[in-house]
Amino acid sequence: MNFCSHCGAAVTLKLPAGDNLPRHVCNQCGMIHYQNPKVVVGAITEWEDKILMCRRAIEPRYGYWTLPAGFMENNETCGEAAVRETLEEAGAQIALGPLFAFVDLPHISQIHIIYRARLLNLDFKPGEESLEARLISESEIPWQDIAFRSIDYTLKCFFEDRRRGLFELHTTIMSISVPETYC
Amino acid sequence: MNFCSHCGAAVTLKLPAGDNLPRHVCNQCGMIHYQNPKVVVGAITEWEDKILMCRRAIEPRYGYWTLPAGFMENNETCGEAAVRETLEEAGAQIALGPLFAFVDLPHISQIHIIYRARLLNLDFKPGEESLEARLISESEIPWQDIAFRSIDYTLKCFFEDRRRGLFELHTTIMSISVPETYC
Repeated sequence: MNFCSHCGAAVTLKLPAGDNLPRHVCNQCGMIHYQNPKVVVGAITEWEDKILMCRRAIEPRYGYWTLPAGFMENNETCGEAAVRETLEEAGAQIALGPLFAFVDLPHISQIHIIYRARLLNLDFKPGEESLEARLISESEIPWQDIAFRSIDYTLKCFFEDRRRGLFELHTTIMSISVPETYC
Repeated sequence: MNFCSHCGAAVTLKLPAGDNLPRHVCNQCGMIHYQNPKVVVGAITEWEDKILMCRRAIEPRYGYWTLPAGFMENNETCGEAAVRETLEEAGAQIALGPLFAFVDLPHISQIHIIYRARLLNLDFKPGEESLEARLISESEIPWQDIAFRSIDYTLKCFFEDRRRGLFELHTTIMSISVPETYC
């Protein structure tokens, strides 16, 4: 950040009065520009014994497999974001279930939140950001080609929970920098 | 947003190629400036049969009671944010427990996330943003003077869960515009 998005003047990184972290402060109008973590939301969607996965048609991680997920937008709920991303990336209509995975990624200032969901029908097809959208059983999961560690974690938690017949909320922290940023 | 924070030129609100929402796009360097929801994190902290509350010394809701909470910062986890905010606003050291309340507020593009926690000692005092920090029993809760609806919701869920002896994750959506924005 170099300029004030409000008045266009240069900003300086400094500690505002009463604050304890340096912020980008406008030299002209004094506006303080806070920068905060972003929320990525997705769904692990079931149909019979399979789950819905997409192969990415965009960077980062072009060609790798993921669960439909993306940045939460202003003026939507987390759940709405999961439904929207599943429709956009897999062309799939779902009924959303409970929160399932909550992953902190402080090194990239993101939270990844995944809900469980049920697929409503088989009328789905890959969206513009996906090369493929497929229903995949546990034995077919391409474990070596998963796009992001948070998705790998979610998948493993899901199949473990399904085996024991009890789904719970799973939370973890992934703090080592690896190429998993959503751009 | 009027100007590009990268190059300082004017921005125009328009639909970027392949996108489905209008964004602020720089007329000069082409940078797309996304705006995303913000995460507010706090803790409901127990000591014996009481919980730790603060009376706000800042707007919005000056003089009203709340749980220690505030905007999550870049490069921290949600849990770290809850611990930090409790230290800043109540001067209190806590041991963080599980995620307890998850509240969507799409009309103000915020998520409020509250963890359960245990107070580690009685050496606490109000921080700069608080007029008071107090341990309060259920019968003393100032229900008419709670600062934010998400906090009221969290308190009610907490005491209900405590009565039945089972704490669970509570999620809800609060979508009607009321004066509860963190600024």
